[in-house]
Amino acid sequence: MNQPISIVLCQTSHPGNIGASARAMKNMGLEQLVLIDPLIFPSVQANERASGADDVLANAKVCGSLKEGLAHCQWLFGTSARSRSFPWPQLTPFEAAQKILDLTNQQQSVGILFGTERSGLSNAQLQHCDFHISIPSNPDFSSLNLGSAVQIISYEIYQALLKSTGEKVLPAVVRDKANHDEVIGLLEHFERVAIQIGFLDPKHPKKLLPRLKRLFVKAQLEKEEVNLLRGFLKLVGR
Amino acid sequence: MNQPISIVLCQTSHPGNIGASARAMKNMGLEQLVLIDPLIFPSVQANERASGADDVLANAKVCGSLKEGLAHCQWLFGTSARSRSFPWPQLTPFEAAQKILDLTNQQQSVGILFGTERSGLSNAQLQHCDFHISIPSNPDFSSLNLGSAVQIISYEIYQALLKSTGEKVLPAVVRDKANHDEVIGLLEHFERVAIQIGFLDPKHPKKLLPRLKRLFVKAQLEKEEVNLLRGFLKLVGR
Repeated sequence: MNQPISIVLCQTSHPGNIGASARAMKNMGLEQLVLIDPLIFPSVQANERASGADDVLANAKVCGSLKEGLAHCQWLFGTSARSRSFPWPQLTPFEAAQKILDLTNQQQSVGILFGTERSGLSNAQLQHCDFHISIPSNPDFSSLNLGSAVQIISYEIYQALLKSTGEKVLPAVVRDKANHDEVIGLLEHFERVAIQIGFLDPKHPKKLLPRLKRLFVKAQLEKEEVNLLRGFLKLVGR
Repeated sequence: MNQPISIVLCQTSHPGNIGASARAMKNMGLEQLVLIDPLIFPSVQANERASGADDVLANAKVCGSLKEGLAHCQWLFGTSARSRSFPWPQLTPFEAAQKILDLTNQQQSVGILFGTERSGLSNAQLQHCDFHISIPSNPDFSSLNLGSAVQIISYEIYQALLKSTGEKVLPAVVRDKANHDEVIGLLEHFERVAIQIGFLDPKHPKKLLPRLKRLFVKAQLEKEEVNLLRGFLKLVGR
């Protein structure tokens, strides 16, 4: 039985990108890689960039044509940076991930196509697809690295899988929060004074300073509060 | 004036990852890169992997210490794959992106820290952070490439920025959808028959076949429907 979700790389030029894609997939729990007519594969460079996802590379299905590589897929999603003149159902990665999981939950098989590094999927390849996925990006610099595109789509699929219902409550933003170096200055001041007065043994600091830092984080220290505390410490350390 | 969001890479070993991060940032509209004590920078490899995001590399702030690199930041977010023994406010990339935009909308400055390729941020570095971001990943293979981690966080920030309210209506899933090769077989069959009967001029095909493919996509052809249509075409082509 094939994995329900295949990542399909078409005519990839750089073997490093194949390795990066394998790693990205495995990071997000995907296993089935399909390589359509790769320029160089297998390759040392692919295994290097896979950083331990060698099993994904070893199990990759290498095919000479799109037709052969996609024969097992019922639904095809094609990634495309460009909006094409010929209109097609278009999804964001977030929307596509929901859709893909809906499909696999109904025992449907899905292939997600990625084109060449230079020009993406051809119009002919895109016309094979049921849906197009477009990764929103800077209009002035929209071409993502292939491995990065695989990472984002795989990430969204894993997120959709993990999707939890609850929302965490976050603290409200304070008005004039202290800068990082002001908080560090306060911590260092506290440390000096604490050692000076024998409250802190530098040889056995335990978790005193991390706990204090955490307290400051939770308190979302404002500049005025830092000044106040440092004024206090100045007096203690005199 | 500094950019409100800085991507801060700590003790990066591989210059390629610095370039990949610059590209990922620029793809998602981020500009301010801060490099804390990079092993090799500047470097040809970084510029190669940046693939045109050379301006981000050229404007990168290179610092010898975390303290210096973060002085301009009011809020620090630290990325971490591991759950630490010492508890800390922890966010998903999605949650963090919302939070980061809430902060920048209130004219707060934010730094997002990424650790070394080998071991991520140290506990000491994480303790400087107001929030920790954990990218959910395969528990058996959780270590992401540095550029990929930067890509995911930058992507979520850009998504949060673009966030639209409307939801697209997607077609319902059909029960026994035809496989990709079955639909292609139908299209090819149609093409043969269309040429045979003079409906399609192969020298001037216009957009007939793409339009037909699109029709099939919208129809979400089931296996039975493919069989039905092929039965019909068989008769036409006789």
